[in-house]
Amino acid sequence: MEHLDTGMPFLLRYENVAWYENGKVRILDRRVFPEIKFVECNDYKEVVQAIADMVTQSAGPYTAVGMGMALAAYQVRNKSKDRQIAFLQQAAFDLAHSRPTTANRYGQITYRCADIAVAALESGQDATETIVNDTIASLNRRYSTMQIVGDYLETLIPNNGTILTQCYGETIIGTVIRAAKRTGKNFKVICAETRPYLQGARLTSSCFAEMGFDTTVITDNMVAFSMQNMGINLFTSAADSIARDGHIANKVGTFQIAILAKYFGIPYYVTGIPDRDKKTRDDIVIEMRDPEQVLRYRGIQNTMPQVKGIYPSFDIVPPHLISGAVTDKGIYVPYLLDTYFEGKQASFY
Amino acid sequence: MEHLDTGMPFLLRYENVAWYENGKVRILDRRVFPEIKFVECNDYKEVVQAIADMVTQSAGPYTAVGMGMALAAYQVRNKSKDRQIAFLQQAAFDLAHSRPTTANRYGQITYRCADIAVAALESGQDATETIVNDTIASLNRRYSTMQIVGDYLETLIPNNGTILTQCYGETIIGTVIRAAKRTGKNFKVICAETRPYLQGARLTSSCFAEMGFDTTVITDNMVAFSMQNMGINLFTSAADSIARDGHIANKVGTFQIAILAKYFGIPYYVTGIPDRDKKTRDDIVIEMRDPEQVLRYRGIQNTMPQVKGIYPSFDIVPPHLISGAVTDKGIYVPYLLDTYFEGKQASFY
Repeated sequence: MEHLDTGMPFLLRYENVAWYENGKVRILDRRVFPEIKFVECNDYKEVVQAIADMVTQSAGPYTAVGMGMALAAYQVRNKSKDRQIAFLQQAAFDLAHSRPTTANRYGQITYRCADIAVAALESGQDATETIVNDTIASLNRRYSTMQIVGDYLETLIPNNGTILTQCYGETIIGTVIRAAKRTGKNFKVICAETRPYLQGARLTSSCFAEMGFDTTVITDNMVAFSMQNMGINLFTSAADSIARDGHIANKVGTFQIAILAKYFGIPYYVTGIPDRDKKTRDDIVIEMRDPEQVLRYRGIQNTMPQVKGIYPSFDIVPPHLISGAVTDKGIYVPYLLDTYFEGKQASFY
Repeated sequence: MEHLDTGMPFLLRYENVAWYENGKVRILDRRVFPEIKFVECNDYKEVVQAIADMVTQSAGPYTAVGMGMALAAYQVRNKSKDRQIAFLQQAAFDLAHSRPTTANRYGQITYRCADIAVAALESGQDATETIVNDTIASLNRRYSTMQIVGDYLETLIPNNGTILTQCYGETIIGTVIRAAKRTGKNFKVICAETRPYLQGARLTSSCFAEMGFDTTVITDNMVAFSMQNMGINLFTSAADSIARDGHIANKVGTFQIAILAKYFGIPYYVTGIPDRDKKTRDDIVIEMRDPEQVLRYRGIQNTMPQVKGIYPSFDIVPPHLISGAVTDKGIYVPYLLDTYFEGKQASFY
């Protein structure tokens, strides 16, 4: 199986995202990167837990749930076919529900894995190997589709311009870097660090810097200062949900950066493929995570015991704050996103 | 010398701010609070360094520079009077310039300390003791003046309402708490954590929680989410500079919270005493601190070596984003702040 990760930064190489081999799934622990540490899962439920714990996030779980399904098939390989099918169905459900906001996307992958595993079993093939190959093929398809998005995004960035990013949208980062390398375009990147997990500081900045872009990290409270003083041409983010009415959900903070972008007259482009099954913002579920993750950092407690925290993982940006939704079928006016679903459908998963 | 810190939270007790005793200045290390650790200075230059390193900040340096002057007087006590005077002048200059944005405020304190030390020397009194007493008297005066500001601010908070804070404005926190305790008013407090040093998480939330207020910490990227979902009645902050044209400088992030408050229709009240010597925003100097402080946290490096950072310590909020400037002479329309300097002057330092 050929990989589409050639020339990609360390974090985007398939083996560093999530990888099944010999009865184990190995996942790069992004919570501590640039320190390099892998979490090893010997049971698909450990993959569920790893995703819930945000060992991997962004598009990482799309691969991890596939590899988790391969592991599930491996775990149950010596049982009866009925038992195997039931186990794979359960695994597909559990892996899909590792996190609520993206359960629809994960489920599209896991149930397809279950189906092809059953087909493999019925034709006497190895279910685990079939799932691994399908997961890589799915990753390749996603890169192919997202390369179109990356190409569109690249056209929006002025040469020698400056973009501001939020959190870590790995596939679009990989594809826009590839597009820029192809056209010879250069730009500066400012990454909001994205507390509490610092995906912007630890992941996004690493990818751009490794590929030779001038990269600066700011804390999340320096966005207005940067927009005022650092010549930002556009703000761009991926999205964990893109509803058909033009509301999008992305890592908490995206909403306020979009408000600030509007204030400063800086365009905000969201990238990704709209979610067919999310008609309006009401279909978006915001995951509330453990507030303790806000009150401490890497084991250091920042607050007194009687202080509370909240941790909404995402917030929702309304269409009036979005300049354009960059998809594989072009750049949409956010209010008109529903028209994406007219005509020929691109294959995403 | 009587203290005005009765019934105050731990952080606001005078001895925990900065304290001269027996040839040493002891400063609570706010960078690691709620862990309790003091930095001990045996030379006034170590006080300068401690302020530059943000061992103490907010109003802490107002006390620390006074105690630093007492230490300087102690250091030079056995020299000739001319030598003592020259040394005190140098110390007044050095301590005033520990940090650029508030050099004017520090200087008002340090040069007065130098003057009274000279007067003490000339009348055969102990210069060190005179300065310590004057520093405490100055702290008391500041609390008296700021109590009027705290009383005004308290009237703006609805009973059982919710306020959002940024960074750590210690004197206003102490006085608004005292005002609320006196009137029996209760309110909830949401503290933006204020990266990179987390003054909101570590300092502000500790004061309010210790005094029995329902206190929640959010990361700096959760402000829009909180304004949308948590019923915030007002945003309030102190300021490191209040120019006479209504521009204010405060911890970086204040600017963007003010923009968000405007977007959500939430009033923003800045508190403090306008700076007579700062006519316009052009008179405000923004301190640029070591970017490494953004790229790491408590010794943990978050970024790859080739990634850069910026660290503007403050940003400037224009008057059109400020609902009112709460001073000891009333609540001013920010555009009309210059009228504060008409008529009778309150004593601040």
